[in-house]
Amino acid sequence: MTPPAVLPHVVILGGGFGGLYAARALRRAPLRLTLVDRRNHHLFQPLLYQVATAALNPSDIAVPIRRVLRRQKNATVLLGEATAVDIAGRRVVLADGELPYDYLIIATGAAHSYFGHDDWSPFAPGLKTIEDALEIRRRILLAFEAAERDPDPGTRRAWLSFVVIGGGPTGVELAGALAEIARLILRADFRSIDPASARVALIEAGPRILPAFAPALSEEAARELAGLGVEVITGAAATSVDATGVSLGERRLQARNVLWAAGVAASPIAGSLGIPLDRAGRVPVSPGLTLPGHPEVFVIGDLAALRQDGKPVPGVAPAAKQMGRHAARNILRAVRGLPHVPFRYRDAGSLATIGRAAAVAEFGRLKLSGFIAWLAWLLVHIYFLIGFRNRLLVMLQWAWLYLRHDSGARLITGEVGPVSGRAPPGRR
Amino acid sequence: MTPPAVLPHVVILGGGFGGLYAARALRRAPLRLTLVDRRNHHLFQPLLYQVATAALNPSDIAVPIRRVLRRQKNATVLLGEATAVDIAGRRVVLADGELPYDYLIIATGAAHSYFGHDDWSPFAPGLKTIEDALEIRRRILLAFEAAERDPDPGTRRAWLSFVVIGGGPTGVELAGALAEIARLILRADFRSIDPASARVALIEAGPRILPAFAPALSEEAARELAGLGVEVITGAAATSVDATGVSLGERRLQARNVLWAAGVAASPIAGSLGIPLDRAGRVPVSPGLTLPGHPEVFVIGDLAALRQDGKPVPGVAPAAKQMGRHAARNILRAVRGLPHVPFRYRDAGSLATIGRAAAVAEFGRLKLSGFIAWLAWLLVHIYFLIGFRNRLLVMLQWAWLYLRHDSGARLITGEVGPVSGRAPPGRR
Repeated sequence: MTPPAVLPHVVILGGGFGGLYAARALRRAPLRLTLVDRRNHHLFQPLLYQVATAALNPSDIAVPIRRVLRRQKNATVLLGEATAVDIAGRRVVLADGELPYDYLIIATGAAHSYFGHDDWSPFAPGLKTIEDALEIRRRILLAFEAAERDPDPGTRRAWLSFVVIGGGPTGVELAGALAEIARLILRADFRSIDPASARVALIEAGPRILPAFAPALSEEAARELAGLGVEVITGAAATSVDATGVSLGERRLQARNVLWAAGVAASPIAGSLGIPLDRAGRVPVSPGLTLPGHPEVFVIGDLAALRQDGKPVPGVAPAAKQMGRHAARNILRAVRGLPHVPFRYRDAGSLATIGRAAAVAEFGRLKLSGFIAWLAWLLVHIYFLIGFRNRLLVMLQWAWLYLRHDSGARLITGEVGPVSGRAPPGRR
Repeated sequence: MTPPAVLPHVVILGGGFGGLYAARALRRAPLRLTLVDRRNHHLFQPLLYQVATAALNPSDIAVPIRRVLRRQKNATVLLGEATAVDIAGRRVVLADGELPYDYLIIATGAAHSYFGHDDWSPFAPGLKTIEDALEIRRRILLAFEAAERDPDPGTRRAWLSFVVIGGGPTGVELAGALAEIARLILRADFRSIDPASARVALIEAGPRILPAFAPALSEEAARELAGLGVEVITGAAATSVDATGVSLGERRLQARNVLWAAGVAASPIAGSLGIPLDRAGRVPVSPGLTLPGHPEVFVIGDLAALRQDGKPVPGVAPAAKQMGRHAARNILRAVRGLPHVPFRYRDAGSLATIGRAAAVAEFGRLKLSGFIAWLAWLLVHIYFLIGFRNRLLVMLQWAWLYLRHDSGARLITGEVGPVSGRAPPGRR
């Protein structure tokens, strides 16, 4: 099982973009590598909303980590949960064992946060894992079923009302996809209701949606969403969320379906590092991406708090990949006795899709919207999907969806509760 | 919601092969049709074992019932659970309501039965639904993960031991697929274990596997299974099943993975009909497929007990489809004041696949095995899949699997328990 013990042992926690890119960058290094993840799969999170909205299958956007690293002979993959890091003892504590390391890369990412309102969670599920996506899909599809059966016009209306909280890319993409499901995909499926009459609202606490984009693109995105029938409400924060809807201060939105796309909180393992974290629970790292005073411990991806040119490095996939490769580079330098070099984030641009043939994109000074931006979005997402098989299957399903307005992934799985009552809460 | 009340109302319980083929056969009839199912999808059960063994996705073999019937304007689909039938009152009792009918087609099928040993169920999950398949997939993949982590050779061996109980087509297909996963698909994925060393045993209580086939084909199937490394044990019934293995009388098989492919029990709604059922809980029906004394109530598919030429009509998909069409025909005759005609089952042949390029097939006197039988199996299954989209996606994935020994659906979803302990029991 263990290669010669003389080789330094690198432990990577997390098989997301950061951890996987770090592992791959070390593929030819004279090191032993152990990648630990709670899940057996790497997830292409940018397309997770498409699983939630029944356009894609889980396996289209997820690959077993073992498969990605099967040919990398210096790497071992462990399915397991890291509960803490013993920095002084240079070991990772697992739920059922421990793992000593010479170098550690912590890339455990973030979960969603309800800003202290954890009681909202049963009514407004968030979207971070495959299970989250399947639970959201279940609720969306069950809501239409419940509406079809409900004789009361008011309740029926509430079943057909969807509120997405959070106007970032995930929120925008979810709201757009929901509007399309209702208007295109489910159009002919029901007899008592017209799915196209569903109401989709997108709530953003700040002054505009997609705050990371240029203001002109935010406006364009809002226009495109409105064209799909999505009601965009900015400058309004949710003050309460319950089984029947959302309150925005005085204003009340009656809706049986609320989705959370607002806050993220760093992975709890950060708390075991014994250093002060930032407000979102992230770990402040040195320019070399290490823990202050611990050049052997790297923190990367959504878990790392790093400022560059006065702005925080954003919690996006390209940043995580760049950090993963950079941590690998610094480990290789350290092995050869060289000092770390500082990390520089190169902004690869931002993309958000809004619906069929509509998106916004920003690459440096180049700003795109509409069909051209959507094509760019399509190409980038296909290109970055891991595995040719996934690329092919996703392209085929998108083509089908685009040309036929039909998706195959509209399955309600899990126990089906009484459809005329409240959909059962998630399994978390 | 309700079309003019003058049209007779046909209620169909169950959206499996029987119910769906009945509904389609009534598409041009001057009737109102309501199809009720607990699930929102029709499931192509003959390929369910491929979802369980991570070769296909749930949505490849399931289609929303609404989508199948979206253009059939006389049909309404209800997601709901029928709990009883009030024969005298001519109404179906739902978990949350009731549904009066003029004609009723009961096609709720069968679940698996542990022959009175329901306590075996947590240790030996059966395969009837998408959820069953995903749970079995989870267990299989987690077993390899647990073996990879387990330092004890004995326990490791037990994690890598698989026992399939029941030598019918499902058991044969499961055992063959398990052997292939271990030997081909997972081959390069692990570091401490050799997945190819996994032990797969197939247990059959009767004297030969595939008892519905000609003896020569049973022998051929056993030979092909042995070629894949499957240990075929006939004439041995399980006397106990627990967390560590299976007892066959004196003999003990240590195995952490036991799958149940042995018994089926008819759907419990039969109990509410107030007539004596057969040993497996099925409903004896008249040659016209109706309940004795109730020409307006049809029972079809796996739920119906019918003998023809001294042999029972088997519980297979072609029989269910033929019965569905026949019930529709008799309803149309009744509407026109004509008497029912008796049902004749036409045996369309039997097929069972064993692994890559190996299968057995029997069409009347034509008996095939090996590659030719496998091609026949492939064509038949692709042909009968509902929806062109599914056909295309399944063909692509099979081609990939065949040529690259690689499947994309190897995802462990659901909560991941401690992998070194017993995998958590299913959610049922």
